[in-house]
Amino acid sequence: MQKNGISNAVIRRLPKYYRQIEWLLDEGVERISSSELSMRMDISASLVRQDLNWFPGSGVQGHGYDVKNLYEEIGHMIGVHQSHNIIVVGAESLGQALATYSNFEKYGFIMTGMFDVNPRLVGLVCRGVEIRPLDHMEAFIRENDIQIAALTVPPKRAVELAARLYRAGVRAIWNFANADLELPDDMIVENVHLSESLMQLSFRLNASA
Amino acid sequence: MQKNGISNAVIRRLPKYYRQIEWLLDEGVERISSSELSMRMDISASLVRQDLNWFPGSGVQGHGYDVKNLYEEIGHMIGVHQSHNIIVVGAESLGQALATYSNFEKYGFIMTGMFDVNPRLVGLVCRGVEIRPLDHMEAFIRENDIQIAALTVPPKRAVELAARLYRAGVRAIWNFANADLELPDDMIVENVHLSESLMQLSFRLNASA
Repeated sequence: MQKNGISNAVIRRLPKYYRQIEWLLDEGVERISSSELSMRMDISASLVRQDLNWFPGSGVQGHGYDVKNLYEEIGHMIGVHQSHNIIVVGAESLGQALATYSNFEKYGFIMTGMFDVNPRLVGLVCRGVEIRPLDHMEAFIRENDIQIAALTVPPKRAVELAARLYRAGVRAIWNFANADLELPDDMIVENVHLSESLMQLSFRLNASA
Repeated sequence: MQKNGISNAVIRRLPKYYRQIEWLLDEGVERISSSELSMRMDISASLVRQDLNWFPGSGVQGHGYDVKNLYEEIGHMIGVHQSHNIIVVGAESLGQALATYSNFEKYGFIMTGMFDVNPRLVGLVCRGVEIRPLDHMEAFIRENDIQIAALTVPPKRAVELAARLYRAGVRAIWNFANADLELPDDMIVENVHLSESLMQLSFRLNASA
């Protein structure tokens, strides 16, 4: 349970609601019932109603939800209107792909810097952001109020770099390194383990053969 | 429960064991006890013993596990020694980053082709693999026995492309598109939803502020 009382299960579903409601907005839908939303999202209507009780401004009994209000309220809950400066640590192809990822800005993250040890990469500019030498990282974090780092370095370097990010004041790591980071509890870590995802795919493919 | 009797919970943990044991091998460790493995992986020792009961050739009561055997047995279970041809559909920066992702081969996936609608990208070569026009995709899938596709296209194109991949005979999709794919049950879909991960990070960061 988070401090605002919303359960982790609801939090995990919020981005799915947000995405679905964004599609409805694009389609010009103004109101939607819990049963229609339920069908589109493959979640039971009663769970939809329960989840959306967190957003009391958006629904009136028997009249469905106001799509625009719901989008605003969920976005506010997720925090997409608050901005945070983010850096990418590790500027090989995955780091560069992330730097060009337009959704960063959509969710309030401002791409501020990129870092790599490789002198061949240092000085390159990726979507207006220059790749800097790794040993400038700590000073840059302090000078630019960096709160988040996307970590896309080899697993053997990840643990040490995560500790450096913590000491420099970074509060959250979006971890793409194929390693479990050991960090104090006040560091937020969101893992994207591509290798594990690929192994799941391999297992499921072979099990179904 | 999968058809070989192993539970989904164990399957989700297998890649973590595999990765941990790979590190042990690199460090030159030959045998490891369930309690040491438990500490390294932050999983209870009894759960480790229970999970690794699936690999009876690797452990002898009181003598710990043979690291090399365990690595082989888990790799065999995951299916890393079986090879499958994979294509990348959508060859913008994320698609290109995936194409250069060396772990594909490590887990038995052979990068065979890349496809995009953008004529500016068609003809470029990414790690030895040429980017081809999207309308050549179906013929290529049939001629090259493609079983897996990594999908990195905009959400609005993803549903239609996933259906085309299914009809062309692809059996599994590694889905990076920010969309829920609606496909028959015999298509395996492994989702990597980067936007949702980023929203989770945003929420947790704002909730902790």
